[in-house]
Amino acid sequence: MRSFLFGAFLFLFIGTVKSQSDSVFIRKIADEIFQHSTAYNNLHALTKNIGPRLSGSPQTYTAEKWGQDALQRAGADRVYLQKAMIPHWVRGGKDQATLISGNNRQTLAVIALGNSVSTPAKGITAPMILIHDFDELEKRKSEIKGKIIFFNHPFDMNFVWMFNAYQEAVPYRVFGASRAAKYGAVGVLVRSMSSSTDNFPHTGAMIYNDSFPKIPALAVGLRDADKLVATAATQNSLSLFISTNAHALADTVGYNVIGEWRGSEFPDQYITVGGHLDSWDPAEGASDDGTGCVHSIEVLRALKAAGYKPRHSIRVVLFTDEENGGRGALAYSSEAKTKNEKHIFALESDAGGFTPREFSFKGTEAQMKTIRPLLPLFEPYGVTTFSMHGAGSDVDPLNDSTGILVAALIPDSQRYFDYHHAANDVFENVNKRELELGAINMAALIYLVDKYGL
Amino acid sequence: MRSFLFGAFLFLFIGTVKSQSDSVFIRKIADEIFQHSTAYNNLHALTKNIGPRLSGSPQTYTAEKWGQDALQRAGADRVYLQKAMIPHWVRGGKDQATLISGNNRQTLAVIALGNSVSTPAKGITAPMILIHDFDELEKRKSEIKGKIIFFNHPFDMNFVWMFNAYQEAVPYRVFGASRAAKYGAVGVLVRSMSSSTDNFPHTGAMIYNDSFPKIPALAVGLRDADKLVATAATQNSLSLFISTNAHALADTVGYNVIGEWRGSEFPDQYITVGGHLDSWDPAEGASDDGTGCVHSIEVLRALKAAGYKPRHSIRVVLFTDEENGGRGALAYSSEAKTKNEKHIFALESDAGGFTPREFSFKGTEAQMKTIRPLLPLFEPYGVTTFSMHGAGSDVDPLNDSTGILVAALIPDSQRYFDYHHAANDVFENVNKRELELGAINMAALIYLVDKYGL
Repeated sequence: MRSFLFGAFLFLFIGTVKSQSDSVFIRKIADEIFQHSTAYNNLHALTKNIGPRLSGSPQTYTAEKWGQDALQRAGADRVYLQKAMIPHWVRGGKDQATLISGNNRQTLAVIALGNSVSTPAKGITAPMILIHDFDELEKRKSEIKGKIIFFNHPFDMNFVWMFNAYQEAVPYRVFGASRAAKYGAVGVLVRSMSSSTDNFPHTGAMIYNDSFPKIPALAVGLRDADKLVATAATQNSLSLFISTNAHALADTVGYNVIGEWRGSEFPDQYITVGGHLDSWDPAEGASDDGTGCVHSIEVLRALKAAGYKPRHSIRVVLFTDEENGGRGALAYSSEAKTKNEKHIFALESDAGGFTPREFSFKGTEAQMKTIRPLLPLFEPYGVTTFSMHGAGSDVDPLNDSTGILVAALIPDSQRYFDYHHAANDVFENVNKRELELGAINMAALIYLVDKYGL
Repeated sequence: MRSFLFGAFLFLFIGTVKSQSDSVFIRKIADEIFQHSTAYNNLHALTKNIGPRLSGSPQTYTAEKWGQDALQRAGADRVYLQKAMIPHWVRGGKDQATLISGNNRQTLAVIALGNSVSTPAKGITAPMILIHDFDELEKRKSEIKGKIIFFNHPFDMNFVWMFNAYQEAVPYRVFGASRAAKYGAVGVLVRSMSSSTDNFPHTGAMIYNDSFPKIPALAVGLRDADKLVATAATQNSLSLFISTNAHALADTVGYNVIGEWRGSEFPDQYITVGGHLDSWDPAEGASDDGTGCVHSIEVLRALKAAGYKPRHSIRVVLFTDEENGGRGALAYSSEAKTKNEKHIFALESDAGGFTPREFSFKGTEAQMKTIRPLLPLFEPYGVTTFSMHGAGSDVDPLNDSTGILVAALIPDSQRYFDYHHAANDVFENVNKRELELGAINMAALIYLVDKYGL
């Protein structure tokens, strides 16, 4: 260990901040959270007592109950539910795939993608074609009929921030099946959307284009994907066996869980902070998005515990169904529009509980006028950038429907896609202190927006 | 998962940088490291094939051999060893402690501190006194005689960066035993220097004051420390049993492993980059400091692979014995002085392989004149701060002896003290991408200092 000569730099910056008192109050929020945060214990309860929370699953409803209780405990004046019709897709059992090469059979680590249809009960066996990108698919369209397409489009690891790599690769997961079905493919296997070094397969939503036959779609772990590529390089005729019992049931009812803390000055004007309560099913949905839920609950608890009295009403929203259609976000934004509610700002956390680095905004530069000079207040707590790379799928609809500024917490992204939608997205892969730093930065932003308006 | 609307921002900044070509070359370094880094595989070999590397242990020498090979492979023009006499302390078996409360016996998770003397073979059983800080020790000095002192001085979790919390608490580990022995204590148990949520005990160096009897010193895991505090609150008379066979042998020979890459313009002027090869013994020394070694080796490999020709000679130094006396650093700096070598700059990595956030320097503001304007070149890769909080124990002696500017890579610190000197400091707790980002920032700094001088 290096020997440290650091001074105490609790109040490192002064600079161009709104006022010294803001830096003092944010320090008070930080002390409150570092000493008394409930975020980590809340995350433990949500992940370990409830677990996977796929839209429509029984845990959808136990999680809603948990969310109401947690918001009550955090000190919300009023906790209520907001209805949304949500998809109800079920996995239906264990997904399987086998690589068939002559007489060799090799089991692959796979998981069906969300919304995939099932294979026939006996599975599908067909020749495999390795495709690297949609351009290659188009060029080889005459070869596709009757085949299982293996889309091997790795993350571009040259990106510094992994969200960019995901953004570029994810169309293969979302649209690959229908793109291949257009030319007669009978199934697809997609390289997992991940930057990990392990072999966990990563699920996530896919969307069918109704113009083409619906074919089953699975994701394969990265090591097995590399093995498929290596085998395909030396063997001419490979086949795949795939099997899944995945299928959609009729839409069902889900609820956004909302905790409201009434504003003293503008009780009919709203600031929203939220995460999504649903998750994919292979694990506990810890980083996606248990952390966003407990971050948001902690914002309310900590501001209250620090003695703050909000001017505007602050709503903590635990959104339903972010993963599989975003119906909760649509319900929230459309009700805001219908009821002609006055919204000021909305913030979400849905990129993990890692050390914060950035807030990313969606809105106009005019709306950023109040915000931009506040950056030095965040720097001691890890957020060193305000960017305009967009927010996220739970608050974007509110920007669409009302035009308000929306934002997302952007933590360090190196580990996020190690766990995202995979069996290792568990409580143990969240660090308590990193989680708390996220809540501190979020609470500071909500405090400043409430205090100064936009 | 949020939906991402990020643009590709590879060349985000232009600004006040030395030149556009630097940003392009640093991007080339980054691509080289993201695509072809050997850092992660090197770390795997060092941690899994060699393992713990306590000064004087057999692995001291297998690690030196590994280091020479790795530096050859990385492309050093010349690899050589630099001798240092190093301490040879051995654990000698399993360390033990038991809490004795009436008829109850409770085993505690403990580990002897580095340099501790042994207990008698049958251990030591004595009443326990809980002491929170040195002030309390002084006030209660009359009670200390014949007792085992339990120093329970937790990390101050209100610090944002955990290095500060360590800095404040670590004197209890280093000096606690002699401070207590002064008043007749027969042993000490120290709360582990950690911010973790688990119960691993954390070892680390302690130093005896020769004016007082040498008494055995152990660290206890945080959960057990809290249990001791809770038990002490309700029970008047608690005793502890402690047992360790730790003892020092005669000093032995160790070596700094040095790889030199000859400068084209100033071959007799040196830029040093290093980490330390030794580690504590409970685990593999992955984050402390395998990561610093493989970072430094990667700087050489990547700059060479990117086609760079250094003006000054670049030395990668894998220091011996950082943990238990810093003899390797002293040998390096005193030989620099004796031989009247011209050193330009030295950089170390000894704070883990987590995502980089900062370079911390030790030197004068005049020496920082060339450096300061370069910050925007680092920001796309995670380093957003140049601070003057000092460097580290492997390069500080070079500042002391030659007055040159020295620096340390400062990664995010939230997880470092989860693993530091404990059984969970293993390869699996290092993330490949975070590790690579450290190497990228270090290579960029070495490149810029070599190019522009100081």
